[in-house]
Amino acid sequence: MGLIENETGAQRTLGYVLDVGQGDGCARCYLDLTEAHMNRHGVLHGGIAGLLLDNAMGATGSLTVDDSGRAPFLTISLNTQFLAPARAGTRVTATGRVTGGGRSLLFIAAELVAGDGTVIATATGVFKRVPQHRLAEGGDA
Amino acid sequence: MGLIENETGAQRTLGYVLDVGQGDGCARCYLDLTEAHMNRHGVLHGGIAGLLLDNAMGATGSLTVDDSGRAPFLTISLNTQFLAPARAGTRVTATGRVTGGGRSLLFIAAELVAGDGTVIATATGVFKRVPQHRLAEGGDA
Amino acid sequence: MGLIENETGAQRTLGYVLDVGQGDGCARCYLDLTEAHMNRHGVLHGGIAGLLLDNAMGATGSLTVDDSGRAPFLTISLNTQFLAPARAGTRVTATGRVTGGGRSLLFIAAELVAGDGTVIATATGVFKRVPQHRLAEGGDA
Amino acid sequence: MGLIENETGAQRTLGYVLDVGQGDGCARCYLDLTEAHMNRHGVLHGGIAGLLLDNAMGATGSLTVDDSGRAPFLTISLNTQFLAPARAGTRVTATGRVTGGGRSLLFIAAELVAGDGTVIATATGVFKRVPQHRLAEGGDA
Repeated sequence: MGLIENETGAQRTLGYVLDVGQGDGCARCYLDLTEAHMNRHGVLHGGIAGLLLDNAMGATGSLTVDDSGRAPFLTISLNTQFLAPARAGTRVTATGRVTGGGRSLLFIAAELVAGDGTVIATATGVFKRVPQHRLAEGGDA
Repeated sequence: MGLIENETGAQRTLGYVLDVGQGDGCARCYLDLTEAHMNRHGVLHGGIAGLLLDNAMGATGSLTVDDSGRAPFLTISLNTQFLAPARAGTRVTATGRVTGGGRSLLFIAAELVAGDGTVIATATGVFKRVPQHRLAEGGDA
Repeated sequence: MGLIENETGAQRTLGYVLDVGQGDGCARCYLDLTEAHMNRHGVLHGGIAGLLLDNAMGATGSLTVDDSGRAPFLTISLNTQFLAPARAGTRVTATGRVTGGGRSLLFIAAELVAGDGTVIATATGVFKRVPQHRLAEGGDA
Repeated sequence: MGLIENETGAQRTLGYVLDVGQGDGCARCYLDLTEAHMNRHGVLHGGIAGLLLDNAMGATGSLTVDDSGRAPFLTISLNTQFLAPARAGTRVTATGRVTGGGRSLLFIAAELVAGDGTVIATATGVFKRVPQHRLAEGGDA
Protein backbone atom coordinates (compact mmCIF):
# COMPACT_ATOMS: atom_id res chain seq x y z
CA MET A 1 0.00 0.00 0.00
CA GLY A 2 1.54 3.27 -1.08
CA LEU A 3 4.82 1.75 -2.26
CA ILE A 4 5.94 2.71 -5.77
CA GLU A 5 8.63 0.45 -7.25
CA ASN A 6 10.20 0.00 -10.66
CA GLU A 7 7.94 2.60 -12.28
CA THR A 8 10.55 4.83 -13.88
CA GLY A 9 13.86 4.30 -15.58
CA ALA A 10 15.82 6.08 -12.87
CA GLN A 11 14.07 4.07 -10.18
CA ARG A 12 14.83 0.75 -11.87
CA THR A 13 18.43 1.75 -12.49
CA LEU A 14 19.13 2.73 -8.89
CA GLY A 15 16.72 0.43 -7.09
CA TYR A 16 15.05 2.79 -4.65
CA VAL A 17 11.49 2.48 -3.39
CA LEU A 18 9.12 5.45 -3.15
CA ASP A 19 6.68 5.34 -0.25
CA VAL A 20 3.73 7.73 -0.50
CA GLY A 21 1.46 5.83 1.87
CA GLN A 22 2.47 6.86 5.38
CA GLY A 23 -0.48 9.23 5.66
CA ASP A 24 1.50 12.15 7.10
CA GLY A 25 1.91 14.09 3.86
CA CYS A 26 5.61 13.18 3.73
CA ALA A 27 6.87 11.00 0.89
CA ARG A 28 9.91 8.81 1.49
CA CYS A 29 12.55 7.14 -0.67
CA TYR A 30 14.29 4.03 0.62
CA LEU A 31 17.52 2.67 -0.79
CA ASP A 32 19.54 -0.30 0.41
CA LEU A 33 23.06 0.84 -0.34
CA THR A 34 25.32 -1.46 -2.29
CA GLU A 35 28.61 -1.08 -4.09
CA ALA A 36 26.53 0.11 -7.08
CA HIS A 37 25.87 3.42 -5.28
CA MET A 38 29.37 4.20 -4.04
CA ASN A 39 31.80 6.88 -5.19
CA ARG A 40 35.57 6.80 -5.53
CA HIS A 41 35.98 7.05 -1.76
CA GLY A 42 33.81 3.98 -1.08
CA VAL A 43 30.89 5.96 0.33
CA LEU A 44 27.47 6.89 -1.05
CA HIS A 45 27.84 9.14 -4.11
CA GLY A 46 26.57 12.60 -3.15
CA GLY A 47 24.65 12.76 -6.39
CA ILE A 48 22.63 9.69 -5.44
CA ALA A 49 21.97 11.21 -2.02
CA GLY A 50 20.72 14.30 -3.83
CA LEU A 51 18.55 12.20 -6.15
CA LEU A 52 16.84 10.44 -3.27
CA LEU A 53 16.18 13.76 -1.55
CA ASP A 54 14.86 15.31 -4.76
CA ASN A 55 12.58 12.38 -5.46
CA ALA A 56 11.15 12.33 -1.95
CA MET A 57 10.60 16.08 -2.13
CA GLY A 58 8.84 16.00 -5.49
CA ALA A 59 6.54 13.21 -4.33
CA THR A 60 5.85 15.14 -1.13
CA GLY A 61 4.70 17.97 -3.38
CA SER A 62 2.46 15.51 -5.24
CA LEU A 63 0.84 14.48 -1.96
CA THR A 64 -0.49 18.03 -1.61
CA VAL A 65 -2.58 17.35 -4.75
CA ASP A 66 -3.81 13.81 -4.17
CA ASP A 67 -2.71 10.66 -2.41
CA SER A 68 -1.42 8.92 -5.53
CA GLY A 69 1.95 10.61 -5.07
CA ARG A 70 2.18 10.88 -8.84
CA ALA A 71 0.79 14.37 -9.58
CA PRO A 72 3.53 16.05 -11.60
CA PHE A 73 5.85 18.49 -9.84
CA LEU A 74 9.00 19.98 -11.32
CA THR A 75 12.11 20.69 -9.32
CA ILE A 76 12.99 24.35 -9.90
CA SER A 77 16.01 24.54 -7.60
CA LEU A 78 17.56 22.21 -5.07
CA ASN A 79 20.11 22.96 -2.37
CA THR A 80 21.79 20.00 -0.70
CA GLN A 81 24.15 19.92 2.26
CA PHE A 82 26.30 16.86 2.88
CA LEU A 83 26.73 16.10 6.56
CA ALA A 84 28.10 12.59 6.86
CA PRO A 85 29.12 9.62 4.69
CA ALA A 86 27.04 6.46 4.26
CA ARG A 87 28.41 3.04 3.40
CA ALA A 88 27.21 -0.06 1.58
CA GLY A 89 25.04 -2.29 3.74
CA THR A 90 22.98 0.56 5.21
CA ARG A 91 19.42 1.44 4.30
CA VAL A 92 19.02 5.19 3.81
CA THR A 93 15.67 6.97 3.91
CA ALA A 94 14.90 10.38 2.42
CA THR A 95 11.81 12.07 3.88
CA GLY A 96 10.25 15.24 2.45
CA ARG A 97 8.28 17.91 4.29
CA VAL A 98 6.44 20.95 2.90
CA THR A 99 7.65 24.13 4.63
CA GLY A 100 5.73 26.78 2.71
CA GLY A 101 4.35 27.94 -0.57
CA GLY A 102 1.19 28.85 -2.35
CA ARG A 103 -0.85 28.09 -5.43
CA SER A 104 1.88 27.09 -7.83
CA LEU A 105 5.17 26.88 -5.95
CA LEU A 106 6.06 24.84 -2.90
CA PHE A 107 9.04 25.05 -0.58
CA ILE A 108 9.99 21.56 0.49
CA ALA A 109 12.74 20.35 2.83
CA ALA A 110 14.10 16.84 3.25
CA GLU A 111 16.52 14.77 5.27
CA LEU A 112 18.40 11.64 4.29
CA VAL A 113 18.96 9.42 7.31
CA ALA A 114 20.87 6.15 7.69
CA GLY A 115 19.66 3.10 9.56
CA ASP A 116 21.50 4.13 12.72
CA GLY A 117 19.87 7.58 12.72
CA THR A 118 22.82 9.49 11.31
CA VAL A 119 21.72 12.40 9.14
CA ILE A 120 23.59 11.93 5.85
CA ALA A 121 22.34 14.98 3.96
CA THR A 122 19.67 17.66 4.09
CA ALA A 123 18.05 19.64 1.32
CA THR A 124 15.70 22.49 0.61
CA GLY A 125 14.11 23.19 -2.72
CA VAL A 126 11.55 25.03 -4.78
CA PHE A 127 9.04 22.85 -6.60
CA LYS A 128 6.37 23.76 -9.13
CA ARG A 129 3.10 22.06 -9.81
CA VAL A 130 2.67 21.30 -13.48
CA PRO A 131 -0.84 21.43 -14.89
CA GLN A 132 -1.53 18.23 -16.85
CA HIS A 133 -1.96 20.16 -20.10
CA ARG A 134 1.48 21.77 -19.77
CA LEU A 135 3.47 18.57 -19.51
CA ALA A 136 3.60 17.98 -23.24
CA GLU A 137 5.19 21.40 -23.71
CA GLY A 138 8.07 20.62 -21.35
CA GLY A 139 10.29 22.56 -18.97
CA ASP A 140 9.01 26.14 -19.09
CA ALA A 141 9.72 27.46 -15.64
CA MET B 1 43.72 9.82 -22.59
CA GLY B 2 42.09 11.44 -19.61
CA LEU B 3 38.86 9.42 -19.83
CA ILE B 4 37.76 7.67 -16.64
CA GLU B 5 35.16 4.93 -17.17
CA ASN B 6 33.65 2.20 -15.01
CA GLU B 7 35.86 3.02 -12.03
CA THR B 8 33.19 3.44 -9.36
CA GLY B 9 29.91 1.78 -8.54
CA ALA B 10 27.87 4.86 -9.29
CA GLN B 11 29.63 5.33 -12.60
CA ARG B 12 29.02 1.74 -13.67
CA THR B 13 25.39 1.94 -12.58
CA LEU B 14 24.61 5.09 -14.52
CA GLY B 15 27.07 4.75 -17.39
CA TYR B 16 28.63 8.20 -17.49
CA VAL B 17 32.18 8.96 -18.58
CA LEU B 18 34.46 11.35 -16.68
CA ASP B 19 36.87 13.34 -18.81
CA VAL B 20 39.76 14.99 -16.96
CA GLY B 21 42.04 15.32 -19.96
CA GLN B 22 40.96 18.46 -21.79
CA GLY B 23 43.82 20.46 -20.32
CA ASP B 24 41.74 23.50 -19.37
CA GLY B 25 41.29 22.64 -15.70
CA CYS B 26 37.62 21.79 -16.28
CA ALA B 27 36.48 18.20 -15.75
CA ARG B 28 33.50 16.94 -17.74
CA CYS B 29 30.94 14.17 -17.36
CA TYR B 30 29.29 12.75 -20.46
CA LEU B 31 26.13 10.69 -20.41
CA ASP B 32 24.19 9.30 -23.36
CA LEU B 33 20.63 9.50 -22.07
CA THR B 34 18.48 6.41 -22.27
CA GLU B 35 15.19 5.33 -20.73
CA ALA B 36 17.28 4.20 -17.73
CA HIS B 37 17.80 7.86 -16.74
CA MET B 38 14.27 9.16 -17.14
CA ASN B 39 11.78 10.24 -14.50
CA ARG B 40 8.01 9.82 -14.35
CA HIS B 41 7.54 12.59 -16.91
CA GLY B 42 9.78 10.92 -19.49
CA VAL B 43 12.63 13.40 -19.13
CA LEU B 44 16.04 13.24 -17.43
CA HIS B 45 15.64 12.76 -13.68
CA GLY B 46 16.78 15.95 -11.97
CA GLY B 47 18.74 13.90 -9.49
CA ILE B 48 20.84 12.39 -12.28
CA ALA B 49 21.41 15.88 -13.70
CA GLY B 50 22.58 16.88 -10.22
CA LEU B 51 24.85 13.85 -9.96
CA LEU B 52 26.59 14.62 -13.25
CA LEU B 53 27.11 18.24 -12.19
CA ASP B 54 28.42 17.16 -8.77
CA ASN B 55 30.81 14.64 -10.26
CA ALA B 56 32.19 17.08 -12.83
CA MET B 57 32.62 19.70 -10.10
CA GLY B 58 34.42 17.36 -7.70
CA ALA B 59 36.80 16.22 -10.44
CA THR B 60 37.38 19.85 -11.41
CA GLY B 61 38.47 20.37 -7.82
CA SER B 62 40.80 17.39 -8.14
CA LEU B 63 42.42 18.95 -11.20
CA THR B 64 43.64 21.81 -8.99
CA VAL B 65 45.80 19.23 -7.16
CA ASP B 66 47.13 17.10 -10.00
CA ASP B 67 46.12 16.01 -13.48
CA SER B 68 44.90 12.57 -12.43
CA GLY B 69 41.47 14.01 -11.64
CA ARG B 70 41.29 11.58 -8.73
CA ALA B 71 42.58 13.63 -5.77
CA PRO B 72 39.81 13.35 -3.17
CA PHE B 73 37.40 16.26 -2.80
CA LEU B 74 34.23 16.20 -0.72
CA THR B 75 31.06 18.01 -1.73
CA ILE B 76 30.06 20.22 1.20
CA SER B 77 27.02 21.85 -0.36
CA LEU B 78 25.51 21.86 -3.84
CA ASN B 79 22.91 24.19 -5.30
CA THR B 80 21.31 23.14 -8.57
CA GLN B 81 18.90 25.05 -10.81
CA PHE B 82 16.85 23.20 -13.39
CA LEU B 83 16.39 25.18 -16.59
CA ALA B 84 15.11 22.80 -19.25
CA PRO B 85 14.23 19.13 -19.74
CA ALA B 86 16.43 16.61 -21.59
CA ARG B 87 15.16 13.49 -23.32
CA ALA B 88 16.48 10.04 -24.13
CA GLY B 89 18.70 9.99 -27.21
CA THR B 90 20.63 13.12 -26.30
CA ARG B 91 24.19 13.24 -24.96
CA VAL B 92 24.47 15.64 -22.03
CA THR B 93 27.76 17.10 -20.83
CA ALA B 94 28.45 18.56 -17.39
CA THR B 95 31.45 20.89 -17.24
CA GLY B 96 32.94 22.24 -14.01
CA ARG B 97 34.81 25.50 -13.44
CA VAL B 98 36.57 26.81 -10.33
CA THR B 99 35.24 30.25 -9.40
CA GLY B 100 37.09 30.91 -6.15
CA GLY B 101 38.46 29.52 -2.95
CA GLY B 102 41.60 29.08 -0.97
CA ARG B 103 43.74 26.50 0.73
CA SER B 104 41.08 23.99 1.72
CA LEU B 105 37.76 25.03 0.19
CA LEU B 106 36.89 25.63 -3.44
CA PHE B 107 33.87 27.29 -5.00
CA ILE B 108 33.02 25.46 -8.21
CA ALA B 109 30.28 26.12 -10.77
CA ALA B 110 29.03 23.82 -13.52
CA GLU B 111 26.65 23.65 -16.45
CA LEU B 112 24.89 20.63 -17.92
CA VAL B 113 24.36 21.11 -21.63
CA ALA B 114 22.55 18.94 -24.19
CA GLY B 115 23.84 18.07 -27.63
CA ASP B 116 21.94 20.95 -29.22
CA GLY B 117 23.44 23.49 -26.84
CA THR B 118 20.43 23.80 -24.53
CA VAL B 119 21.48 24.44 -20.93
CA ILE B 120 19.67 21.76 -18.90
CA ALA B 121 20.84 22.72 -15.42
CA THR B 122 23.42 24.83 -13.63
CA ALA B 123 25.03 24.40 -10.24
CA THR B 124 27.29 26.05 -7.73
CA GLY B 125 28.89 24.30 -4.81
CA VAL B 126 31.42 24.30 -2.02
CA PHE B 127 34.03 21.54 -2.17
CA LYS B 128 36.69 20.54 0.32
CA ARG B 129 40.03 18.96 -0.31
CA VAL B 130 40.56 15.89 1.82
CA PRO B 131 44.08 15.15 2.96
CA GLN B 132 44.92 11.51 2.17
CA HIS B 133 45.34 10.66 5.89
CA ARG B 134 41.85 11.93 6.71
CA LEU B 135 39.98 9.75 4.27
CA ALA B 136 39.93 6.74 6.57
CA GLU B 137 38.18 8.81 9.23
CA GLY B 138 35.34 9.78 6.88
CA GLY B 139 33.00 12.72 6.47
CA ASP B 140 34.11 15.22 9.09
CA ALA B 141 33.25 18.56 7.58
CA MET C 1 19.44 58.29 -16.89
CA GLY C 2 18.53 54.90 -15.53
CA LEU C 3 19.81 55.58 -12.00
CA ILE C 4 17.39 54.87 -9.17
CA GLU C 5 18.34 56.45 -5.83
CA ASN C 6 16.63 56.93 -2.49
CA GLU C 7 13.38 55.35 -3.69
CA THR C 8 12.90 52.73 -1.00
CA GLY C 9 13.52 52.52 2.72
CA ALA C 10 16.21 49.88 2.37
CA GLN C 11 17.94 51.90 -0.32
CA ARG C 12 17.97 55.06 1.77
CA THR C 13 19.17 53.17 4.84
CA LEU C 14 22.11 51.51 3.09
CA GLY C 15 22.87 54.13 0.45
CA TYR C 16 23.20 52.00 -2.67
CA VAL C 17 22.34 53.14 -6.19
CA LEU C 18 20.40 50.97 -8.63
CA ASP C 19 21.37 51.35 -12.27
CA VAL C 20 18.89 49.97 -14.80
CA GLY C 21 20.06 52.07 -17.72
CA GLN C 22 23.08 50.28 -19.17
CA GLY C 23 21.02 48.86 -22.03
CA ASP C 24 22.38 45.32 -21.74
CA GLY C 25 19.49 43.84 -19.75
CA CYS C 26 21.67 43.65 -16.64
CA ALA C 27 20.75 45.77 -13.62
CA ARG C 28 23.50 46.88 -11.27
CA CYS C 29 23.73 48.02 -7.66
CA TYR C 30 26.58 50.28 -6.59
CA LEU C 31 27.62 50.85 -3.01
CA ASP C 32 30.51 52.91 -1.71
CA LEU C 33 31.51 50.92 1.35
CA THR C 34 31.86 52.74 4.63
CA GLU C 35 32.12 51.70 8.26
CA ALA C 36 28.31 51.61 8.24
CA HIS C 37 28.42 48.40 6.14
CA MET C 38 31.07 46.49 8.05
CA ASN C 39 30.70 43.41 10.25
CA ARG C 40 32.52 42.46 13.45
CA HIS C 41 35.63 41.55 11.48
CA GLY C 42 35.89 44.97 9.81
CA VAL C 43 34.83 43.73 6.38
CA LEU C 44 31.61 44.04 4.37
CA HIS C 45 28.75 42.25 6.15
CA GLY C 46 27.84 39.19 4.08
CA GLY C 47 24.19 40.08 4.48
CA ILE C 48 24.72 43.43 2.77
CA ALA C 49 26.63 41.66 -0.02
CA GLY C 50 23.62 39.37 -0.36
CA LEU C 51 21.21 42.31 -0.38
CA LEU C 52 23.06 44.05 -3.20
CA LEU C 53 23.10 40.84 -5.23
CA ASP C 54 19.40 40.22 -4.56
CA ASN C 55 18.46 43.76 -5.53
CA ALA C 56 20.46 43.70 -8.75
CA MET C 57 18.94 40.32 -9.63
CA GLY C 58 15.35 41.40 -8.99
CA ALA C 59 15.82 44.54 -11.09
CA THR C 60 17.40 42.43 -13.83
CA GLY C 61 14.19 40.43 -13.80
CA SER C 62 12.23 43.67 -14.09
CA LEU C 63 14.21 44.62 -17.17
CA THR C 64 12.74 41.60 -18.96
CA VAL C 65 9.32 43.30 -18.63
CA ASP C 66 10.12 46.93 -19.43
CA ASP C 67 13.04 49.33 -19.17
CA SER C 68 11.78 51.06 -16.02
CA GLY C 69 13.49 48.42 -13.90
CA ARG C 70 10.57 48.67 -11.49
CA ALA C 71 8.21 45.88 -12.64
CA PRO C 72 7.63 43.79 -9.53
CA PHE C 73 9.58 40.56 -9.11
CA LEU C 74 9.70 38.46 -5.96
CA THR C 75 12.77 36.59 -4.81
CA ILE C 76 11.74 32.97 -4.29
CA SER C 77 15.14 31.57 -3.32
CA LEU C 78 18.65 32.97 -3.28
CA ASN C 79 21.95 31.14 -2.98
CA THR C 80 25.03 33.20 -2.24
CA GLN C 81 28.67 32.17 -2.13
CA PHE C 82 31.21 34.37 -0.36
CA LEU C 83 34.57 34.41 -2.11
CA ALA C 84 36.55 37.31 -0.68
CA PRO C 85 36.25 40.14 1.84
CA ALA C 86 35.68 43.80 0.91
CA ARG C 87 36.73 46.76 3.01
CA ALA C 88 35.55 50.31 3.62
CA GLY C 89 36.71 52.73 0.93
CA THR C 90 35.93 50.40 -1.98
CA ARG C 91 33.00 50.73 -4.37
CA VAL C 92 31.34 47.36 -4.95
CA THR C 93 29.08 46.61 -7.91
CA ALA C 94 26.51 43.83 -8.13
CA THR C 95 25.50 42.90 -11.68
CA GLY C 96 22.61 40.56 -12.52
CA ARG C 97 22.19 38.34 -15.57
CA VAL C 98 19.25 36.19 -16.63
CA THR C 99 20.34 32.58 -17.18
CA GLY C 100 17.01 30.90 -17.94
CA GLY C 101 13.35 30.68 -17.21
CA GLY C 102 9.95 30.97 -18.76
CA ARG C 103 6.65 32.73 -18.44
CA SER C 104 6.53 33.26 -14.69
CA LEU C 105 9.86 32.24 -13.20
CA LEU C 106 13.34 33.46 -14.02
CA PHE C 107 16.73 32.06 -13.09
CA ILE C 108 19.10 34.94 -12.47
CA ALA C 109 22.77 34.95 -11.53
CA ALA C 110 24.86 37.83 -10.20
CA GLU C 111 28.37 38.79 -9.19
CA LEU C 112 29.51 41.37 -6.66
CA VAL C 113 32.83 42.85 -7.71
CA ALA C 114 35.12 45.34 -5.95
CA GLY C 115 36.80 48.31 -7.57
CA ASP C 116 40.01 46.35 -8.18
CA GLY C 117 38.13 43.54 -9.97
CA THR C 118 38.07 41.10 -7.06
CA VAL C 119 34.93 38.98 -7.06
CA ILE C 120 33.50 39.37 -3.56
CA ALA C 121 30.45 37.11 -3.85
CA THR C 122 28.32 35.32 -6.43
CA ALA C 123 24.69 34.32 -6.33
CA THR C 124 22.04 32.40 -8.18
CA GLY C 125 18.34 32.67 -7.54
CA VAL C 126 14.80 31.98 -8.60
CA PHE C 127 12.61 35.04 -9.17
CA LYS C 128 8.93 35.31 -9.89
CA ARG C 129 7.08 37.97 -11.82
CA VAL C 130 4.18 39.36 -9.86
CA PRO C 131 1.12 40.44 -11.81
CA GLN C 132 0.12 43.95 -10.73
CA HIS C 133 -3.26 42.71 -9.41
CA ARG C 134 -1.61 40.17 -7.12
CA LEU C 135 0.60 42.58 -5.26
CA ALA C 136 -2.09 43.64 -2.85
CA GLU C 137 -2.56 40.04 -1.77
CA GLY C 138 1.10 39.63 -0.84
CA GLY C 139 3.59 36.78 -0.65
CA ASP C 140 1.84 33.80 -2.17
CA ALA C 141 4.60 31.84 -3.81
CA MET D 1 22.71 39.78 29.62
CA GLY D 2 23.66 38.25 26.30
CA LEU D 3 22.32 41.13 24.20
CA ILE D 4 24.74 42.65 21.68
CA GLU D 5 23.69 46.06 20.35
CA ASN D 6 25.34 48.76 18.28
CA GLU D 7 28.66 46.90 18.11
CA THR D 8 29.18 46.88 14.35
CA GLY D 9 28.53 49.28 11.52
CA ALA D 10 25.93 47.04 9.91
CA GLN D 11 24.15 46.59 13.23
CA ARG D 12 24.00 50.31 13.90
CA THR D 13 22.84 51.02 10.36
CA LEU D 14 19.97 48.54 10.43
CA GLY D 15 19.17 48.58 14.15
CA TYR D 16 18.93 44.87 14.94
CA VAL D 17 19.80 43.31 18.27
CA LEU D 18 21.83 40.11 18.58
CA ASP D 19 20.90 37.84 21.47
CA VAL D 20 23.46 35.18 22.38
CA GLY D 21 22.27 34.66 25.92
CA GLN D 22 19.33 32.26 25.71
CA GLY D 23 21.47 29.33 26.79
CA ASP D 24 20.22 26.92 24.13
CA GLY D 25 23.11 27.31 21.71
CA CYS D 26 20.89 29.26 19.30
CA ALA D 27 21.70 32.91 18.60
CA ARG D 28 18.88 35.24 17.63
CA CYS D 29 18.59 38.54 15.80
CA TYR D 30 15.65 40.81 16.56
CA LEU D 31 14.57 43.66 14.34
CA ASP D 32 11.58 45.96 14.78
CA LEU D 33 10.61 46.61 11.18
CA THR D 34 10.16 50.18 10.04
CA GLU D 35 9.87 51.91 6.70
CA ALA D 36 13.70 51.95 6.71
CA HIS D 37 13.71 48.19 6.01
CA MET D 38 11.12 48.03 3.27
CA ASN D 39 11.53 47.34 -0.44
CA ARG D 40 9.72 48.80 -3.43
CA HIS D 41 6.64 46.69 -2.68
CA GLY D 42 6.32 48.01 0.88
CA VAL D 43 7.45 44.77 2.54
CA LEU D 44 10.67 43.71 4.23
CA HIS D 45 13.56 43.74 1.75
CA GLY D 46 14.59 40.12 1.15
CA GLY D 47 18.20 41.15 1.51
CA ILE D 48 17.60 42.38 5.05
CA ALA D 49 15.78 39.13 5.84
CA GLY D 50 18.86 37.32 4.55
CA LEU D 51 21.18 39.52 6.60
CA LEU D 52 19.32 38.77 9.83
CA LEU D 53 19.40 35.04 9.09
CA ASP D 54 23.10 35.18 8.22
CA ASN D 55 23.95 37.10 11.37
CA ALA D 56 21.99 34.77 13.64
CA MET D 57 23.63 31.78 11.96
CA GLY D 58 27.17 33.11 12.29
CA ALA D 59 26.63 33.92 15.96
CA THR D 60 25.14 30.45 16.48
CA GLY D 61 28.41 29.11 15.11
CA SER D 62 30.29 31.33 17.57
CA LEU D 63 28.32 29.83 20.45
CA THR D 64 29.90 26.45 19.67
CA VAL D 65 33.25 28.01 20.65
CA ASP D 66 32.35 30.06 23.72
CA ASP D 67 29.38 31.89 25.17
CA SER D 68 30.54 35.35 24.08
CA GLY D 69 28.87 34.84 20.69
CA ARG D 70 31.76 36.77 19.17
CA ALA D 71 34.21 34.03 18.11
CA PRO D 72 34.82 34.69 14.43
CA PHE D 73 32.97 32.59 11.86
CA LEU D 74 32.88 33.25 8.14
CA THR D 75 29.84 32.58 5.97
CA ILE D 76 30.98 30.35 3.11
CA SER D 77 27.61 29.91 1.42
CA LEU D 78 24.06 30.84 2.31
CA ASN D 79 20.81 29.60 0.79
CA THR D 80 17.66 31.52 1.63
CA GLN D 81 14.04 30.73 0.80
CA PHE D 82 11.43 33.46 1.00
CA LEU D 83 8.09 32.17 2.26
CA ALA D 84 5.99 35.20 3.20
CA PRO D 85 6.17 38.99 3.34
CA ALA D 86 6.66 41.02 6.52
CA ARG D 87 5.49 44.58 7.04
CA ALA D 88 6.56 47.61 9.07
CA GLY D 89 5.36 47.47 12.66
CA THR D 90 6.25 43.79 13.18
CA ARG D 91 9.19 42.48 15.17
CA VAL D 92 10.97 39.70 13.28
CA THR D 93 13.28 37.19 14.94
CA ALA D 94 15.94 35.11 13.21
CA THR D 95 17.03 32.02 15.14
CA GLY D 96 19.99 29.85 14.18
CA ARG D 97 20.52 26.14 14.84
CA VAL D 98 23.56 23.94 14.17
CA THR D 99 22.57 20.93 12.06
CA GLY D 100 25.94 19.30 11.49
CA GLY D 101 29.61 19.77 10.87
CA GLY D 102 33.00 18.99 12.25
CA ARG D 103 36.25 20.58 13.27
CA SER D 104 36.30 23.57 10.93
CA LEU D 105 32.99 23.75 9.08
CA LEU D 106 29.48 23.96 10.48
CA PHE D 107 26.14 23.47 8.80
CA ILE D 108 23.67 25.92 10.31
CA ALA D 109 19.98 26.45 9.59
CA ALA D 110 17.79 29.38 10.58
CA GLU D 111 14.24 30.67 10.48
CA LEU D 112 12.99 34.24 10.40
CA VAL D 113 9.64 34.49 12.15
CA ALA D 114 7.26 37.44 12.58
CA GLY D 115 5.50 38.40 15.79
CA ASP D 116 2.39 36.46 14.81
CA GLY D 117 4.35 33.26 14.20
CA THR D 118 4.45 33.50 10.40
CA VAL D 119 7.66 32.07 8.98
CA ILE D 120 9.04 34.82 6.73
CA ALA D 121 12.15 33.06 5.42
CA THR D 122 14.36 30.06 6.08
CA ALA D 123 18.02 29.51 5.37
CA THR D 124 20.76 26.94 5.41
CA GLY D 125 24.44 27.69 5.18
CA VAL D 126 28.01 26.58 5.52
CA PHE D 127 30.10 28.46 8.06
CA LYS D 128 33.80 28.28 8.83
CA ARG D 129 35.57 28.92 12.07
CA VAL D 130 38.42 31.37 11.64
CA PRO D 131 41.47 30.91 13.83
CA GLN D 132 42.36 34.20 15.48
CA HIS D 133 45.75 34.38 13.72
CA ARG D 134 44.14 34.07 10.31
CA LEU D 135 41.80 37.02 10.62
CA ALA D 136 44.42 39.56 9.64
CA GLU D 137 45.00 37.71 6.38
CA GLY D 138 41.35 37.98 5.35
CA GLY D 139 38.89 35.87 3.38
CA ASP D 140 40.84 32.77 2.34
CA ALA D 141 38.19 30.11 2.11
